[in-house]
Amino acid sequence: MSLIIVGSIALDTIETQAGSVSDVPGGSSSYCSIAASYFTTPHVVGVVGEDFPESVITLFKDHHINQAGLVSEPGKTFRWGGRYAENFDERTTLFTELNVFETFNPTLPETYKSADYVLLANIHPGLQHHVLDQLESEAFIVLDTMNLWIETAHAELISLMKRVNMLVINDEEALMLTGERNYGKAAQKLKDMGPEWVVIKKGQHGALLFHESNVFAVPGLILDKVIDPTGAGDTFVGALIGYLAQSKDHSFDNMKLAIVFGSVLASFCVEDFSVNGITYLEEADLEERYDAFVVMSQF
Amino acid sequence: MSLIIVGSIALDTIETQAGSVSDVPGGSSSYCSIAASYFTTPHVVGVVGEDFPESVITLFKDHHINQAGLVSEPGKTFRWGGRYAENFDERTTLFTELNVFETFNPTLPETYKSADYVLLANIHPGLQHHVLDQLESEAFIVLDTMNLWIETAHAELISLMKRVNMLVINDEEALMLTGERNYGKAAQKLKDMGPEWVVIKKGQHGALLFHESNVFAVPGLILDKVIDPTGAGDTFVGALIGYLAQSKDHSFDNMKLAIVFGSVLASFCVEDFSVNGITYLEEADLEERYDAFVVMSQF
Repeated sequence: MSLIIVGSIALDTIETQAGSVSDVPGGSSSYCSIAASYFTTPHVVGVVGEDFPESVITLFKDHHINQAGLVSEPGKTFRWGGRYAENFDERTTLFTELNVFETFNPTLPETYKSADYVLLANIHPGLQHHVLDQLESEAFIVLDTMNLWIETAHAELISLMKRVNMLVINDEEALMLTGERNYGKAAQKLKDMGPEWVVIKKGQHGALLFHESNVFAVPGLILDKVIDPTGAGDTFVGALIGYLAQSKDHSFDNMKLAIVFGSVLASFCVEDFSVNGITYLEEADLEERYDAFVVMSQF
Repeated sequence: MSLIIVGSIALDTIETQAGSVSDVPGGSSSYCSIAASYFTTPHVVGVVGEDFPESVITLFKDHHINQAGLVSEPGKTFRWGGRYAENFDERTTLFTELNVFETFNPTLPETYKSADYVLLANIHPGLQHHVLDQLESEAFIVLDTMNLWIETAHAELISLMKRVNMLVINDEEALMLTGERNYGKAAQKLKDMGPEWVVIKKGQHGALLFHESNVFAVPGLILDKVIDPTGAGDTFVGALIGYLAQSKDHSFDNMKLAIVFGSVLASFCVEDFSVNGITYLEEADLEERYDAFVVMSQF
């Protein structure tokens, strides 16, 4: 058992300047799992309602996502609606209908409990604790979170940070958690809170990786078209841990590559609505995009 | 005759959270020339007052800056005072006393007119035009400017852009000039306005270089201490053109290195007040800092 991913599975309604879509695949787990599937077999833990489209189940199957931990409950699937401002600087939540997700209590199938890599995708820190409580292995654990939990579940998040190997957050969340605007100082404070690896995502400015005294910066790719940024962060961390689970190499140099492949998949993600940008990619697509990062940053 | 640099020479009074200094060396030309001096002999064109300290003239001499184009006029040297907000996000101008700079009319000494590289450091676009009018050679011309000239001397700046090879501006100025938030689109519009090379500086997020369909990104170094950001942009462009003037290689790969060395010097600049961070550096200092950029960005 290599990689398990625990997060939300949703049907999203999204409005951007490029158009709008409704009831499309969304949720942290959907993006993470599809992105990770390019490197390893992700084992997903989540809940959907009776109305979850068979087409999405097929999509997951096509991406070799193990769905033994995916439960279908009576009722409707978690739904989220959001609208982006013209330049994607701001996002307004239009509605949140938790539905079956309201009582989600992630339960690991027996075979999942020996996972080597665990991605705690963005859900309530209490549920993330509960996942770790069920683990029977010494896994490499990556934690994703969001501003909502920093505000509303602060104590649970702080205690959770002591249980994980890597924290992945964006620059605003890093500032919220540490009060530091200097990335180096913020990362040091975050490492002092538990995780030995810290990744700070900076949107179009790329991402920073911190470990011991080392820092690595990957730039944001310059893209001609950005259609929908939903799930870009989930895609980034999904590909990152997928690459790690495949390579099983925790050296700083290999972690750099995991960050680059996270950026490669995230750059595809924003080029289309929902998960459309990251489905059915060919190895040549990934190589071409990886080469673009090489040209852009190697001297 | 290799590199000439035309800009302002000032005595600055600066307040940051780290402390304050008064009547210290400042102005675009001072930073640019000292930064360029690590790679080639800069030939400076500028004006100072009778009160200009002999110690700064000595400092310029120590850095092998040719001062044949430096004129001393009756009256006081240009003075500028500024205060930075706690996180350096904002800068307030406390005073601007133009003094001898008010009637500055840059005149190139005969020997300067055959320059191969010209840095039009940040001064009024009308004066920058006047410098180019005196040139008798086919030089590689780099243009620096600021928000003030975009607002108050727009037409002169636009016509100037058709006469230069490279434009170096920050992200806010790129937005002001093009109305584009997308860096790729902004750079394309700027190239369409004249310069075949465009550099967009992003402060702590580093800088982007655009040429034809190529993009290069250098990250911002993570620094433990930032004392005074004054002149960091001037230092960046000074080192950049200094490196170019030394190497005489306008390939994209070599331009990448010029950008990296610009970033190396700029990272030293912000670590101390005024030009203190970039004076009397040893080759080993530059190599060590260059290696930090390699570790931080190469995978």
